[in-house]
Amino acid sequence: MGEFDLIARYFKRPVRQAVLGVGDDCALMQPRPGTQMAISSDMLVSGRHFFADVNPRTLGHKSLAVNLSDLAACGARPLAFTLALSLPEVNEPWLAAFAEGLLALADAHGCELIGGDTTAGPLNICITVFGEVPVVNGRSQALLRSGAQAGDDIYVSGTLGDARLALNTLLGQIDLPPELLATARARLETPAPRVALGQALCGVATAAIDVSDGLLGDLGHILECSGMGACIEADTAIKLVASYPDSKRATGQFDLKISTEQWRSLALAGGDDYELLFTAPSAQRAAVAQAGQDSLTPVTRIGQIRAECGLQLVDSQGQTLPNHYASFDHFA
Amino acid sequence: MGEFDLIARYFKRPVRQAVLGVGDDCALMQPRPGTQMAISSDMLVSGRHFFADVNPRTLGHKSLAVNLSDLAACGARPLAFTLALSLPEVNEPWLAAFAEGLLALADAHGCELIGGDTTAGPLNICITVFGEVPVVNGRSQALLRSGAQAGDDIYVSGTLGDARLALNTLLGQIDLPPELLATARARLETPAPRVALGQALCGVATAAIDVSDGLLGDLGHILECSGMGACIEADTAIKLVASYPDSKRATGQFDLKISTEQWRSLALAGGDDYELLFTAPSAQRAAVAQAGQDSLTPVTRIGQIRAECGLQLVDSQGQTLPNHYASFDHFA
Repeated sequence: MGEFDLIARYFKRPVRQAVLGVGDDCALMQPRPGTQMAISSDMLVSGRHFFADVNPRTLGHKSLAVNLSDLAACGARPLAFTLALSLPEVNEPWLAAFAEGLLALADAHGCELIGGDTTAGPLNICITVFGEVPVVNGRSQALLRSGAQAGDDIYVSGTLGDARLALNTLLGQIDLPPELLATARARLETPAPRVALGQALCGVATAAIDVSDGLLGDLGHILECSGMGACIEADTAIKLVASYPDSKRATGQFDLKISTEQWRSLALAGGDDYELLFTAPSAQRAAVAQAGQDSLTPVTRIGQIRAECGLQLVDSQGQTLPNHYASFDHFA
Repeated sequence: MGEFDLIARYFKRPVRQAVLGVGDDCALMQPRPGTQMAISSDMLVSGRHFFADVNPRTLGHKSLAVNLSDLAACGARPLAFTLALSLPEVNEPWLAAFAEGLLALADAHGCELIGGDTTAGPLNICITVFGEVPVVNGRSQALLRSGAQAGDDIYVSGTLGDARLALNTLLGQIDLPPELLATARARLETPAPRVALGQALCGVATAAIDVSDGLLGDLGHILECSGMGACIEADTAIKLVASYPDSKRATGQFDLKISTEQWRSLALAGGDDYELLFTAPSAQRAAVAQAGQDSLTPVTRIGQIRAECGLQLVDSQGQTLPNHYASFDHFA
């Protein structure tokens, strides 16, 4: 099978929102008047972002999910994406499963494949995603990292740390019972981008980012862009790890031989969570709760923005904890 | 140097056309009313699209050039691009040179870097480029592959085959004198995307594509999309190889020990040319010549579109030649 047959068989589909899709030198889109286009690119590399032998269906899902998560963090509605794919070989069952996982998530979000590239080389997946953000009275409704204000509440959606727990288990560093591993592994391999929540937070949240490198590291980007500091309740965050015994989400009680310190590290710096971390004025608490309900997404208040620079971590008694949680860095 | 310092140092620049550039979850663009956005992605892999030890400055140039060439083939005006980069290591001199080559070409075309991704991994460069296409009276002015009509002339811009000649020389398959290698190598490493010509051809050309996989292979896409056939004058195409002794472009006369058959193969199936291949009605010959002049780009008529399917090659005496020229295919 050659390059063009491969594209035609697995990746060429009719477009509805775009003017022109796969099959010419460029795709064509005509954004609706009164909207902006939100654009984000993510590159996933074999052996770094995923195991080389990962299930190709979940890999297809995750490759698009991490991009949709960026649109979610801007409050954008997904429209379309391009896919550039470097493959070591043409493995048809692998490609069919990859395309199935990818396009199922794309269809679920009305996000259509409009173009891209395929080449031979080490396995590498680069997706660029396009979303729509409304402009109201000349003001973009996009959620940015730079809008956090002193006194704002800090929230995170869903659960934290389980993706990292699964990774550590698969790497043989932790021994997790199969029931818990299944849940954690789903968070690692098939994260659900918080697209509906992001859109519901437009006009409510003051700043947002998606948690990819770890909660505190990504919070650091909001603080830097907003010129603010923050206080985070570490033990509230711990309870957002679905596998944590006191989280009420855990499927059973196990002695996992994981210290409180390790739970904190999973929650605060685990990474690969693809949850939304966002800020909103305390006057908006009801609106935040409503946005969570409307999007069927749990949201938890975990701290507060402060005018003083720096990040303070406190435990459940309000005692300051040392902050030595490093965010993920590809070159650190 | 960490991932975020790397981005800040080499790739974060103020934006003029985009609403928001590098540094948030998404970039934001607001296309002008009455325009469409043309979008294309290309992925370049070390050892396949370029030698691992290639000059990083020319690699930066070429990575964007091949994308701008896709915009040119649609007649789009370049606006912006995203860059996803997988790097085996942080090599600052390499990165500085890569960024310099990339951004010099970007600046020359008013095409700004608005976002992307960096990760560790085998060297891989994925660029997605955005351009603007006017819509006039509700009709997109984009040049597509599908508009060729029976009787249309077939044209190609610039020169053909020299990039492949340089590649073959660097691979030790041909012995080219240094003067000719310098010219040919510039065509391989720093192709000039035909952006101005593409825009000048809007409303003149009926179909267009950029020559990346080889003239005949890329012509095949136009024929397939347009449901047409063609006749190509092989010996007119040969003279478009700048290194061909009779091309009048050659810097000197050398006995290169290259057969006529090899010259034909270079011109018709060399690949990596990044010239525009396009069709236009014979009534538009003056307009095509004018578009070439206005964009300072040579254009040469090399054949004609026919209603009958199939591709006929003829020599300078009009005799049919066998067509055994394979287009480049990453998986063939």
